[in-house]
Amino acid sequence: MNAYEELRARGLRLDLTRGKPSAEQLDLANPLLALPGPADFRAADASDVRNYGGLRGLPELRAIFAPLLGVAADRLLAAGNASLELMHDYLVHAVLFGVPGGDHPWRDAAFLCPVPGYDRHFAICAKLGIEMIPVALTGDGPDMAEVERLVAEDARVKGVWCVPKYSNPTGETYSPAVVRRLAAMPTAAPDFRVFWDNAYAVHHLTTEPREVEDLLPACESAGNPDRALVFGSTSKITFAGAGVGFFGASDANLDWFTGHLSKRTIGPDKINHLRHTRFLRSPDGVLSHMARHRELLAPKFELVERVLTEQLTGVATWTTPEGGYFVSLRVTPGCATRVVELAAQAGIALTPAGAPFPYGRDPEDAVIRIAPTYPPLPELADAMNGLAVCVRLATDEHLGRGPVR
Amino acid sequence: MNAYEELRARGLRLDLTRGKPSAEQLDLANPLLALPGPADFRAADASDVRNYGGLRGLPELRAIFAPLLGVAADRLLAAGNASLELMHDYLVHAVLFGVPGGDHPWRDAAFLCPVPGYDRHFAICAKLGIEMIPVALTGDGPDMAEVERLVAEDARVKGVWCVPKYSNPTGETYSPAVVRRLAAMPTAAPDFRVFWDNAYAVHHLTTEPREVEDLLPACESAGNPDRALVFGSTSKITFAGAGVGFFGASDANLDWFTGHLSKRTIGPDKINHLRHTRFLRSPDGVLSHMARHRELLAPKFELVERVLTEQLTGVATWTTPEGGYFVSLRVTPGCATRVVELAAQAGIALTPAGAPFPYGRDPEDAVIRIAPTYPPLPELADAMNGLAVCVRLATDEHLGRGPVR
Repeated sequence: MNAYEELRARGLRLDLTRGKPSAEQLDLANPLLALPGPADFRAADASDVRNYGGLRGLPELRAIFAPLLGVAADRLLAAGNASLELMHDYLVHAVLFGVPGGDHPWRDAAFLCPVPGYDRHFAICAKLGIEMIPVALTGDGPDMAEVERLVAEDARVKGVWCVPKYSNPTGETYSPAVVRRLAAMPTAAPDFRVFWDNAYAVHHLTTEPREVEDLLPACESAGNPDRALVFGSTSKITFAGAGVGFFGASDANLDWFTGHLSKRTIGPDKINHLRHTRFLRSPDGVLSHMARHRELLAPKFELVERVLTEQLTGVATWTTPEGGYFVSLRVTPGCATRVVELAAQAGIALTPAGAPFPYGRDPEDAVIRIAPTYPPLPELADAMNGLAVCVRLATDEHLGRGPVR
Repeated sequence: MNAYEELRARGLRLDLTRGKPSAEQLDLANPLLALPGPADFRAADASDVRNYGGLRGLPELRAIFAPLLGVAADRLLAAGNASLELMHDYLVHAVLFGVPGGDHPWRDAAFLCPVPGYDRHFAICAKLGIEMIPVALTGDGPDMAEVERLVAEDARVKGVWCVPKYSNPTGETYSPAVVRRLAAMPTAAPDFRVFWDNAYAVHHLTTEPREVEDLLPACESAGNPDRALVFGSTSKITFAGAGVGFFGASDANLDWFTGHLSKRTIGPDKINHLRHTRFLRSPDGVLSHMARHRELLAPKFELVERVLTEQLTGVATWTTPEGGYFVSLRVTPGCATRVVELAAQAGIALTPAGAPFPYGRDPEDAVIRIAPTYPPLPELADAMNGLAVCVRLATDEHLGRGPVR
């Protein structure tokens, strides 16, 4: 019995598909389950958070996250349980009505998509009929020469998706030069936007946090104050199923967005905002909470690195992220789909090959996203060792050394 | 000094504008502030509500509200903090993409708007460029002969706004005959929808609750299963600022809606769903909770009725609702705007005249919406007595008996 047959015979049922926090990480936020507490419902301004109102969210919670997201508190909006909602709704309203500085709705628009990237970003574009143009990532952000060329020549290009720190899935952090070029580059579209999904702003895996230049002030300095749309959330800080999303932008963008939002809701869940304020307390409170996440997550990423080094050196390459939720594995071109298929047959669920690319198509069929945060360590070890077996088998098949039945 | 001068001299600052619960009503739900409790995060199916997932919301909460909203639990979706969001998003996606059974997006669409009605419904139509056609309310629902005529002749008419029980602001409840005609009437549009905002489903002011026929089964029986869109929320049951919205519809509508929703979010705040489940426990738990609301609200509505009867008999007419949040006052045509102006000058804020009508225009300038739930009784008495003074003065002015300076 060869290695793959042995793997299948084990009858595993393991899942490396999504960037979900583990139960132990969620436990860290369990005090939220009894907060704000029996008689605590007054905001700092003495308003009653139980009642209607407060479209921009609780000011004291916005003050905690403002420095962490690089946005002044009065330009940061706190909303419901997902920043994805805020990105989606900004785009929906852009398609319906256009945005400040533009002269028509975003029909027949195009977006730049640094790849590999986040599948849910691409799904919003696909839904709204926005053409997606892939741009390569370089290790410190997108290929800026290519970005600058594309935005300069085509007014249909209205935006670019960015995960600027510990990017999903490559783990890279945008360099200061990349941030400044994004802020300052001339664009054919007068209403060009950078969708800055800072999902992993405080999600460090080392004790030497990477920092990224703040986009909003960079855009202001460059004379493009409305270009920056900053998003963040507590989904991977407190509870993925009951967190708070944030949106920071210029006054023009915020007024436009809340103008549309005010027809949709009277306000977000302000008690959840108060609950998060009581639990996290301050920006430092967030950082020390994230240090406890790091203690749980770092061993998992170390295990992934160890298995890949031991088993796949010379066979594949991979990222070694200093933060975030993912490792990006690069196998021999033409093999990724087969690896995912072999793993599935062995009971190891992987994100579909191609998912980190627009339209789900990896032109090289080479990238596999690994999400190691959710399973306990022993299961993660089984899954990674099994994955390595599948990579070796698929590579052998591809190079004509197999198939090994 | 005449009555109005005396009123102004008092320097009141009172607010009858919005249907907000009072602090005492919110206090009834204070146990929610410490729920679900330190170690309670498992749904009935043993899933961890702290993590991602569950796009349709927590099944056990949907089971509690299903009978109260007349929708089977597996056709009821539980979402975020407002049913208005669900109505808005259904309409946004209808305008962008069209709906099941239709052959094109809802551009150049029109809606029937029973009047007087809810200003936030009309604001969504105004935002999306949907033409609003007013239809008179009769005391047991809209003028159905007029509704049937309009929907039969014009395929642009895609929907009708309904608040079927204790309607905002007239307090009327739709009769069984009206419900059945809405469900069965032939419509020129194949994708016609009834937006059934059952906001006051359990908000009774008497011990003899009014009931309304369930729309979803009525539409199914009539062969129009996709016509009914049922909305409800806990905004005026638990916390207006941290509640749960519900949406019930046919499988075709739910699949269409959650298909679009899945691009926007991974799921709603399921801990808030669990919190509400623990607090409300059962449909009977909701009803007994609402009986405590009634004890607080009934005296306020009795006070409104008493002041109006004592001071405005023969001068104006008004509704005597058996539930809901509003009293609709009808003054001499041509006087409503002046009443609101006089009241504002005396420190009594009223909903702008015209607000309960499409485009904010009451063709008769006769309707004033009174929202008596929020102020404590002594303030409500001051506001109502002051309002009566303003109505008498405006009427006198209009009939040439004034102005009384």
